Amino acid sequence: MMKGLAEVHRAKPNDETTQHLRHLAHDLSNSLETIVQAAYLLEQTKLDEKAKKWTKLIDTAAKDAVRLNRQIREILKSQS
Amino acid sequence: MMKGLAEVHRAKPNDETTQHLRHLAHDLSNSLETIVQAAYLLEQTKLDEKAKKWTKLIDTAAKDAVRLNRQIREILKSQS
Repeated sequence: MMKGLAEVHRAKPNDETTQHLRHLAHDLSNSLETIVQAAYLLEQTKLDEKAKKWTKLIDTAAKDAVRLNRQIREILKSQS
Repeated sequence: MMKGLAEVHRAKPNDETTQHLRHLAHDLSNSLETIVQAAYLLEQTKLDEKAKKWTKLIDTAAKDAVRLNRQIREILKSQS
């Protein structure tokens, strides 16, 4: 079925916005991956008790962030 | 102007999706804020050279992630 002109015009900005959001969420996943890996490497070094505590906090928050961003990317993937 | 039934049905899932995305991006910003703050506190502790390197990497990646997530939230805010 052919799309009407109005429908094409309405669809276009949404498609572009979704593409833009997908691109941003992809870049975000790269930054989060860097944090997860650096936190892992940090845990392998000799840290005092306070440093261990902050590293553990970073590790947990980074894994939460990865999970949330994965959910965002799945929603965006399911769109137009 | 009154909306047709078809238009209402089409609009509803998008609104709900945007709301859901906004909610996820808001939670994500909280996780990222935790990482930025923990990285700052980590920098105040006594770290060896390797640990300093991984901490710096986390700090940079977390600031990139905050910037990207802010862009995502601004786009979502501008949507219906």
